[in-house]
Amino acid sequence: MKKIIDVYGSELVEDYQKVITDFGLDTFPLDLFPEPNRIMRRGIVFAGRDFKQIAEAIKEKKPFYVLSGIMPSSEKIHFGNKMVVENIAYFQKMGGKAFILIADLESAAARGVSLEEAQKRALDFHIPSYIALGLDPKKTVFYFQSQNKDVIHMTYEFAQKITLNEFRAVYGAADPGRILSALTQVSDILYPQIKERMPGIIPTGLDQDPHIRLTRDVVRRTKQKKFFLPSSMYHKYTPSLDGSLKMSKSKPMSCISLPEDPEVVCKKLKRALTGGRESVEEQRKLGGTPENCVIFELYKQHLIEDDKELKERYDLCKSGKILCGECKGYACEKMTNFMTQLEKDIEKNRSKVDKLNFVEFS
Amino acid sequence: MKKIIDVYGSELVEDYQKVITDFGLDTFPLDLFPEPNRIMRRGIVFAGRDFKQIAEAIKEKKPFYVLSGIMPSSEKIHFGNKMVVENIAYFQKMGGKAFILIADLESAAARGVSLEEAQKRALDFHIPSYIALGLDPKKTVFYFQSQNKDVIHMTYEFAQKITLNEFRAVYGAADPGRILSALTQVSDILYPQIKERMPGIIPTGLDQDPHIRLTRDVVRRTKQKKFFLPSSMYHKYTPSLDGSLKMSKSKPMSCISLPEDPEVVCKKLKRALTGGRESVEEQRKLGGTPENCVIFELYKQHLIEDDKELKERYDLCKSGKILCGECKGYACEKMTNFMTQLEKDIEKNRSKVDKLNFVEFS
Repeated sequence: MKKIIDVYGSELVEDYQKVITDFGLDTFPLDLFPEPNRIMRRGIVFAGRDFKQIAEAIKEKKPFYVLSGIMPSSEKIHFGNKMVVENIAYFQKMGGKAFILIADLESAAARGVSLEEAQKRALDFHIPSYIALGLDPKKTVFYFQSQNKDVIHMTYEFAQKITLNEFRAVYGAADPGRILSALTQVSDILYPQIKERMPGIIPTGLDQDPHIRLTRDVVRRTKQKKFFLPSSMYHKYTPSLDGSLKMSKSKPMSCISLPEDPEVVCKKLKRALTGGRESVEEQRKLGGTPENCVIFELYKQHLIEDDKELKERYDLCKSGKILCGECKGYACEKMTNFMTQLEKDIEKNRSKVDKLNFVEFS
Repeated sequence: MKKIIDVYGSELVEDYQKVITDFGLDTFPLDLFPEPNRIMRRGIVFAGRDFKQIAEAIKEKKPFYVLSGIMPSSEKIHFGNKMVVENIAYFQKMGGKAFILIADLESAAARGVSLEEAQKRALDFHIPSYIALGLDPKKTVFYFQSQNKDVIHMTYEFAQKITLNEFRAVYGAADPGRILSALTQVSDILYPQIKERMPGIIPTGLDQDPHIRLTRDVVRRTKQKKFFLPSSMYHKYTPSLDGSLKMSKSKPMSCISLPEDPEVVCKKLKRALTGGRESVEEQRKLGGTPENCVIFELYKQHLIEDDKELKERYDLCKSGKILCGECKGYACEKMTNFMTQLEKDIEKNRSKVDKLNFVEFS
């Protein structure tokens, strides 16, 4: 295990290491959780908070939960959502109770999307996609924030616990929509605990750590409620195809949505930054640098499940036996298979949505 | 009518006039509404906004609503609440649909009172008191904010419409609890309109005008919803027994709660500021000044319904025929009757509460 991590260049780049230091995160411990999934064992999951209480619950077969939210203001999902779902699926397999909330109230408060529109998008697309990506719907409680009276009531109670300046310290800015949105997220994160006292973990992107911090502050200020401090688990970003830290819709040619037309994606892959050398000759002689290659990062994070196969790709590149063009063709093939299957699965799951376990307004 | 107003010194004191000017209020028009109630015809109701649309609805027998909220964080009500209820009862008689909301979410967000506690207080005390003070419960829709899904959903939608700086401009300060509370009030004020498109009026104390202004801003920014701008109607404060503008719990000997032990109230009345002269002789000769008398203001605002009787009290004082001690005895008698009856009526109405027309969570 340790070796794999070294080989695939998962040493934390300076930015990630800085975040861990600045916000007092724990580095993800490779040996704590049983049967780590692909992104855990390859160092894509790299940090978080309070891992131990979850590892203990798994070990002792005690109840715990794993929770994530769907923001239906966005019409697409992305590789970040895929990693979240994979981690939820992992904890489901380890005995965790999964909660998926649809953040329709937040979509209204922070993005101006109507509740009806948000609900429609979630049922038509987001939920079927999450199931397609590996979520076990039978072991999942779903809810719309707008239909969850407990969450709403907690939001009003928690409003007293945080000052405007604390909001600013956590989020940089504070406007009414964002404040309401953040407080509602705190309620979401703690909601499973008012049904059953148990620890929980939130697998998410690093950019969501402010919500975790805010929630932990609220927990400390509502001691009589005896909430567990939420654990969290952060994955690295899937890099933008131009090599920058994170895909962004503002650079559509460097950003891949899920699902997306494979032909279009392959075109984008052709333009992606690789770890290739200045010339063919040099690359044949010195080999490529997969550590600096977006295509290899896509293999590692998403496209190649089998560690042996990944090692082969690595060696092929490193030894100069394969050049970037050919490798991009291989990536295109993998991506096409993935997108085609995903699209099919989403379609298939759409019909299952009305049979899911939704929390009712009551 | 005009004469009564003059006689009883209802000219606006400088403070009230300043508020009208500063916030662009309309002076209450004495001849606009049919059969004005005691506080309307005596100039206690002195200002508001958009009276005409309500007067027209009354005249043309078109639908309109009158709305007020109960804040169950307070364990007592006061004379201000009494005036609000009297104005609601007036508009009910004129054909208006009444809505009374119990601000349990606000009590939680702004005062830290639990929803359960708020609900208990409202059912045990506030609602029976409002009925005792003249509210017609059969023509009233009641709701708890926490049970009104529409109100909650509107609150999240409206969060986008107001910036933090606008909150500050309206309320002076802005903290998460207050922001959430104010946004929820906006939703309350507009809630009847999502059920039926009609204008509405909010009778309240002047200190609530910020909420009306905020609501009017939200209406202007949600044009597609075609809300009517809310009308409002402000009564003067019942003065503190020491003569200052407004009763305050921080000066308990100058403040009367509803209900309160008549013996205690009579003790307080004995210490009240009057319009008496320096000496008995002087008062016999020159007469008192009811215009500057808290006791007379209590008669005018609350204790004497009949205009003729009020005129008699005025003349007795003005002519020097009665001195302050005797007059306070008379006030004590009136107050004792009022408080005794009120207490009885609250007790009686408590049993009716479960038969009221509450909005259900659905």
